[in-house]
Amino acid sequence: MAQHGPRLVVPIDVTKKPREQKLPLHNRWHPDIPPVAEVRVGEVFRVEMVDFSGGGITQEYTAEDIKYSDQSVVHYLSGPIRVVDDDGPAKPGDLLAVEICNLGPLPGDEWGFTAIFDRENGGGFLTDHFPCATKAIWYFEGIYAYSPHIPGVRFPGLTHPGIIGTAPSMELLNVWNDRERELEENGLKSLKLCEVLHSRPLANLPSTKGCLLGKIPEGTREWQKIAIEAARTIPGRENGGNCDIKNLSRGSKIYLPAFVEGANFSTGDMHFSQGVGEVSFCGAIEMSGFVELKCEIIRGGMKEYLTPMGPTSLHVNPIFEIGPVEPRFSEWLVFEGISVDESGRQHYLDASVAYKRAVLNAIDYLSKFGYSKEQVYLLLSCCPCEGRISGIVDAPNAVATLAIPTAIFDEDIRPKANKLPVGPRVVRNPDIPRCTYDGNLPITKNLSAGS
Amino acid sequence: MAQHGPRLVVPIDVTKKPREQKLPLHNRWHPDIPPVAEVRVGEVFRVEMVDFSGGGITQEYTAEDIKYSDQSVVHYLSGPIRVVDDDGPAKPGDLLAVEICNLGPLPGDEWGFTAIFDRENGGGFLTDHFPCATKAIWYFEGIYAYSPHIPGVRFPGLTHPGIIGTAPSMELLNVWNDRERELEENGLKSLKLCEVLHSRPLANLPSTKGCLLGKIPEGTREWQKIAIEAARTIPGRENGGNCDIKNLSRGSKIYLPAFVEGANFSTGDMHFSQGVGEVSFCGAIEMSGFVELKCEIIRGGMKEYLTPMGPTSLHVNPIFEIGPVEPRFSEWLVFEGISVDESGRQHYLDASVAYKRAVLNAIDYLSKFGYSKEQVYLLLSCCPCEGRISGIVDAPNAVATLAIPTAIFDEDIRPKANKLPVGPRVVRNPDIPRCTYDGNLPITKNLSAGS
Amino acid sequence: MAQHGPRLVVPIDVTKKPREQKLPLHNRWHPDIPPVAEVRVGEVFRVEMVDFSGGGITQEYTAEDIKYSDQSVVHYLSGPIRVVDDDGPAKPGDLLAVEICNLGPLPGDEWGFTAIFDRENGGGFLTDHFPCATKAIWYFEGIYAYSPHIPGVRFPGLTHPGIIGTAPSMELLNVWNDRERELEENGLKSLKLCEVLHSRPLANLPSTKGCLLGKIPEGTREWQKIAIEAARTIPGRENGGNCDIKNLSRGSKIYLPAFVEGANFSTGDMHFSQGVGEVSFCGAIEMSGFVELKCEIIRGGMKEYLTPMGPTSLHVNPIFEIGPVEPRFSEWLVFEGISVDESGRQHYLDASVAYKRAVLNAIDYLSKFGYSKEQVYLLLSCCPCEGRISGIVDAPNAVATLAIPTAIFDEDIRPKANKLPVGPRVVRNPDIPRCTYDGNLPITKNLSAGS
Amino acid sequence: MAQHGPRLVVPIDVTKKPREQKLPLHNRWHPDIPPVAEVRVGEVFRVEMVDFSGGGITQEYTAEDIKYSDQSVVHYLSGPIRVVDDDGPAKPGDLLAVEICNLGPLPGDEWGFTAIFDRENGGGFLTDHFPCATKAIWYFEGIYAYSPHIPGVRFPGLTHPGIIGTAPSMELLNVWNDRERELEENGLKSLKLCEVLHSRPLANLPSTKGCLLGKIPEGTREWQKIAIEAARTIPGRENGGNCDIKNLSRGSKIYLPAFVEGANFSTGDMHFSQGVGEVSFCGAIEMSGFVELKCEIIRGGMKEYLTPMGPTSLHVNPIFEIGPVEPRFSEWLVFEGISVDESGRQHYLDASVAYKRAVLNAIDYLSKFGYSKEQVYLLLSCCPCEGRISGIVDAPNAVATLAIPTAIFDEDIRPKANKLPVGPRVVRNPDIPRCTYDGNLPITKNLSAGS
Repeated sequence: MAQHGPRLVVPIDVTKKPREQKLPLHNRWHPDIPPVAEVRVGEVFRVEMVDFSGGGITQEYTAEDIKYSDQSVVHYLSGPIRVVDDDGPAKPGDLLAVEICNLGPLPGDEWGFTAIFDRENGGGFLTDHFPCATKAIWYFEGIYAYSPHIPGVRFPGLTHPGIIGTAPSMELLNVWNDRERELEENGLKSLKLCEVLHSRPLANLPSTKGCLLGKIPEGTREWQKIAIEAARTIPGRENGGNCDIKNLSRGSKIYLPAFVEGANFSTGDMHFSQGVGEVSFCGAIEMSGFVELKCEIIRGGMKEYLTPMGPTSLHVNPIFEIGPVEPRFSEWLVFEGISVDESGRQHYLDASVAYKRAVLNAIDYLSKFGYSKEQVYLLLSCCPCEGRISGIVDAPNAVATLAIPTAIFDEDIRPKANKLPVGPRVVRNPDIPRCTYDGNLPITKNLSAGS
Repeated sequence: MAQHGPRLVVPIDVTKKPREQKLPLHNRWHPDIPPVAEVRVGEVFRVEMVDFSGGGITQEYTAEDIKYSDQSVVHYLSGPIRVVDDDGPAKPGDLLAVEICNLGPLPGDEWGFTAIFDRENGGGFLTDHFPCATKAIWYFEGIYAYSPHIPGVRFPGLTHPGIIGTAPSMELLNVWNDRERELEENGLKSLKLCEVLHSRPLANLPSTKGCLLGKIPEGTREWQKIAIEAARTIPGRENGGNCDIKNLSRGSKIYLPAFVEGANFSTGDMHFSQGVGEVSFCGAIEMSGFVELKCEIIRGGMKEYLTPMGPTSLHVNPIFEIGPVEPRFSEWLVFEGISVDESGRQHYLDASVAYKRAVLNAIDYLSKFGYSKEQVYLLLSCCPCEGRISGIVDAPNAVATLAIPTAIFDEDIRPKANKLPVGPRVVRNPDIPRCTYDGNLPITKNLSAGS
Repeated sequence: MAQHGPRLVVPIDVTKKPREQKLPLHNRWHPDIPPVAEVRVGEVFRVEMVDFSGGGITQEYTAEDIKYSDQSVVHYLSGPIRVVDDDGPAKPGDLLAVEICNLGPLPGDEWGFTAIFDRENGGGFLTDHFPCATKAIWYFEGIYAYSPHIPGVRFPGLTHPGIIGTAPSMELLNVWNDRERELEENGLKSLKLCEVLHSRPLANLPSTKGCLLGKIPEGTREWQKIAIEAARTIPGRENGGNCDIKNLSRGSKIYLPAFVEGANFSTGDMHFSQGVGEVSFCGAIEMSGFVELKCEIIRGGMKEYLTPMGPTSLHVNPIFEIGPVEPRFSEWLVFEGISVDESGRQHYLDASVAYKRAVLNAIDYLSKFGYSKEQVYLLLSCCPCEGRISGIVDAPNAVATLAIPTAIFDEDIRPKANKLPVGPRVVRNPDIPRCTYDGNLPITKNLSAGS
Repeated sequence: MAQHGPRLVVPIDVTKKPREQKLPLHNRWHPDIPPVAEVRVGEVFRVEMVDFSGGGITQEYTAEDIKYSDQSVVHYLSGPIRVVDDDGPAKPGDLLAVEICNLGPLPGDEWGFTAIFDRENGGGFLTDHFPCATKAIWYFEGIYAYSPHIPGVRFPGLTHPGIIGTAPSMELLNVWNDRERELEENGLKSLKLCEVLHSRPLANLPSTKGCLLGKIPEGTREWQKIAIEAARTIPGRENGGNCDIKNLSRGSKIYLPAFVEGANFSTGDMHFSQGVGEVSFCGAIEMSGFVELKCEIIRGGMKEYLTPMGPTSLHVNPIFEIGPVEPRFSEWLVFEGISVDESGRQHYLDASVAYKRAVLNAIDYLSKFGYSKEQVYLLLSCCPCEGRISGIVDAPNAVATLAIPTAIFDEDIRPKANKLPVGPRVVRNPDIPRCTYDGNLPITKNLSAGS
């Protein structure tokens, strides 16, 4: 009988370390990282991947691994994969259309984690409120995830790769490094006060520490040369990368610009599910996994479809199509935030502040149902919630909303008249893995009674 | 035969000016604006409303009315409406649940407009790119809207009131005025460079000019006293107000905090449809209309369900439930933006910059299908598109997306391989009403070929 | 200011009787009923209509009007409406595309009814089980309906006209009368035993009794001639007619064959909501109402798109497109039936028997939640439930399903482990309007314990 | 690292024949077929299964295997599986809740087939129109299926097991055999003329031919005894069985009555996708596959939730919950049928006739787009179309509809004004595998021009 399944082009063995995989992984963007596989347009192929930490974060019920996690090695990516059609490899200026035919956890490894990084080691969107390293383990039952650390909740995953991107050209890489270095060096001057106090890194500049470059042997001169200039994978950029678009699931199509011959795309950072914004930073349900993909080359597609926005022709962004198979919910509870911060200070049309406030409002609300605030922070990072910018023009307040599907809870969380006082409800506050915060920065009081 | 329809508590005659309506309108928030009607919990009642400009913007195919529109009078609201149950009026500390049972345009007035304000007179999210006053007229065919100014597009409306809010207490009003004045006075110092150059108002502080206070006769001492401290209706705030949440349509429920006796809520600024962010500012399909509402009082609900976030117990935000009847689309084309601005400059996790870039990308893309960029800017302001914050933690780039339902176009707008060069397609560029920009501020080049 | 609303082409005054309306109504299909209005393609126009009974069934809490309702007068239709474009009126052989732009109850008349006809006077799908005339009154709160007679339930309506159809040609009318007379006359011989016992009429042949023919004065010779051959409106046929397709709501498009010049279409029998099958016969939420329509003529469309199936070219059926605005539910409880009847007798791939059994199963199940079986029968007739044919080939059993959205109930109706015995729950069994059955036919025992 | 995936309780090797599998399969229902595995409530386990024909129908591009397929062996099922909780095995009278956590094709075997059986060997819903054995092969690209035999179509699968059911008790088995034998013996007398001419089997009575009974060795006395009375798996019955409910996909829950100790449920007949009714009989996309399941026992649930309908307490039907993850389509083209057959003959409220007519209408319509009618018949059997009973009470016509999602086609299939005559379009009529019909029965002319 003929084999019909997708061809496995990048295999992963989760019992092995990232450096021991059959095909070498990489954790930087650079044009000179050689492809590990080649695929033809039209064929369906399978790429497997380790979780973003490459196993650095474990299934143990402890947050020690989170607190001391090595941020220099993220994210371990599978690839690069070179794409060809009858006219040869993709060329710079082409668009690479990648369809996600299927994806999921790796068989036998059906679990994931959501975590809050320690404020001194990466932090998160609300790091000033929640500075402690914390972790929740999730188990999968087919399409569903549940966690012993966040009881009373179960939801179907909208599984997606957090990262998919093409290799940058040298020219584009230089643009990235220049503008990010400029921010790192001059950022403090131009930043607003609230941001200066922020302990999170302003940018994530190239660093040889922890650098893994696929087939380039570590420590060689070539490795040295590349490592010193290769871009970190943390931010999304013109090549796609760490977009964290939670809807890029089965049936989606991603139009990526090709900057180098072959397009050389990589993927990784699988998420079983993610809330909009992935607010706790290590915030999706992180896991190992596989994707089954099909490629198409749109020759000359960059010029045809993308418009550069910036000094060079490289300032473009990918385009996406969302697939028809998503978990659908019919009832949503929506929290709002405006661009007034927790101290009562007015910001000018700042959607980030508004969204932060919406998330804090949701955390406060849900904590009334027996959860600790850290549990809710973890939950909102990874459950299928929707973050929307509602108003961005009505000075001085940006308005953002966070919509939560009510069906993920095993009780009705909507406000009710004629109810007994909330008081002592079911307490859903198990012994969640958690470390203390040993840093020096002041913790922002939530300014609410129960903080 | 018994009358079964909702009781009409605020009637509007659109052939009359705002000051001539049977029940007086108001365009400020203040605790001392007397209610014009009283409703009981459980009863379904009908509120009619003028468009936000009170007829100041007309159906004429000209943008003169936009260019010189009087920003001091917006938004004309219907109300306040006092809410009572068997225990008397709502009390401060209660939650007022308002269900939207039905809504729509006023019979006989089935049209609307979407506009770009002149940069010197309000501007919009992309005012540096599109400084000219521009207008599109929309006509309604039942649930659908179409515009002679943006041909090839037709979509069902997700109709909603842009504004619904309760009267603030004096204490809350003072909080608003203090924090907004602080921004207005000290904002220039703390703002980033890009914002200082911005010509838009930093805040919209109280102003007696254009002030309308319902039953309080204009020019009286009482009017003077109130007008000088009454808050403008432009930003959304703790009382709800101008939230512009596009999903607050039929079947939605809004939980508003009550700050004064009776809750005294008002509504207005009807939108036939709005895109996420209402980016062109006058950006929804603005119209007159009606809502049919039903109220419930949740006694003590503020304490029970809301958590103040700020120095006083008043720093709360409303909560919403979204209804089950929305136009649903199954295919979306998604544009992405990162927090690098049009000049190539890197910003730190700025969701507003990222969303701006996503919108600009979408404008550039769709302009390849025969539209002018201003047409697309207007379209994205009012069509049922989704703006999402995708990544808010991956320093230095925030990632935002704008998803557009492909079904609203009469041609397939998705990228295609094997296509002829775009070149001269159908040109969809009619004589759209437009004024010149006479201001002094430099216009931001889009930095793209076809700008 | 210009009038923008749809032109009102058929007005209704619900305080008047059907025969007193400004434009005369009709309750038969015949080519010689003259049009009462003319519309042009592209224009949006409004048609108002009485409820199917023309006010014969009232809002009183009694079922007397149901028991003795005059079946000879149903359904009162608005029209015929003649359709023209630049090339003149629609012609036989054209397709008439009718888009439903909007619809709803008539303002001030926001109520409806669902009923079970007495077995001697029309009956229903389950008339052998439920032979008594029964009635529930529904009130509307915008998009929602609730009934004091079926407490604990509230749902958004998927409002639609039960009837929309074009005038038949004389040739088509003859086809109808011939084949239905043949059934009436010879039906008993060919029918299965279970059907012979059935007291419902086999067909509804022409009858001058109660006949209303629009502009044709009653009692005239012309009226006599037409009345004797005009088809009843009860069954759906080649011209559309009483299709009772519950999804023909806002945004739907109906492609009707034109059999006479002008197409001469009529509409009526508005339903606020209907379950699949309208099982209790008077089973939707029946009401007066309005539709706003827009027409298009597809010249020669019958030949182009429809294929006659039968001895003449007239044996065609309409085509429909469903609109994008429907209440969506995410959770459904599904009941199954197979083609074994209540006595345990096996039928051969009979989908009607299977569906009957599925409905009976659902009634039995829901009656465990405090309802009487008649209440549930009424509810399933009118709530947004889905009836599907699941298997139609697996001899000897057809399988049919009935899916009920769980969100319409105010309690969780799903089966649960670890539950107390059902026993005495909340009894939701108010004094539902009901008459006794005085007929002679035996009532089918449900053969279940609690029947 | 701990194993997290579901426990594999029934493994399948598709390179082996049904009789060679590690755990024996069965193709009959009988209480004495011993369980092959035991599972505990709450655990997630995996069941693999062969396709219904056990490999009898191949991937070859020929219909010979269809024409001569052995109907006596269908369907090969995996199981029985015995279910226990802390209180021991499920007991008669309990309800077994089975949740489908995940499912799909077997890795490496991602293909399927849809076929029309020869009229002399099983036939199908339209066997009088399409008597020839025909086959289409489908290949899977993740969630999508496409067929070289039906070009221009691609759709996401709503994958489900066609069969899931519990073992009957001896008493229930006797009920089945009695009533089906009664039909087989006396059916001809009571059937309508159209059905008598029908060549399809009236029932599928027990037959030792092809009988496979799991662990019971073939040919033994025990096997003889059981084989002679074991029920065929073709029809759905009280135990669930061959329900062919196309929505029983990921996240669905099935409440099956337990008739024997352990409940002993079996499953099989995987469908990548199926249209409502599975009209061509071998009509889904048939494949091998796996399901991941989780069970719960509702003690005493039959009495609590099900109501017997028939002479004994066993006449019950399962209940289902549909999951939240389905491919969703927003645009549907709907075909209607009434209970007038292809000869123009009127039937009395016969939903099967109405549905047949709707399907024939859809076939005729779609054949105008370059397809042969047999291609469309195959397509409508397996694509995600919806068959609904619209009217079941309006004598004499039942109305049924068939709704087809327009997005599955690569061209716009909706009726259009201003179109060129259909005439010679793209012909999508490849060399579809097909045999001749050698039987004696007359073929029903479609009575349409192009038949």
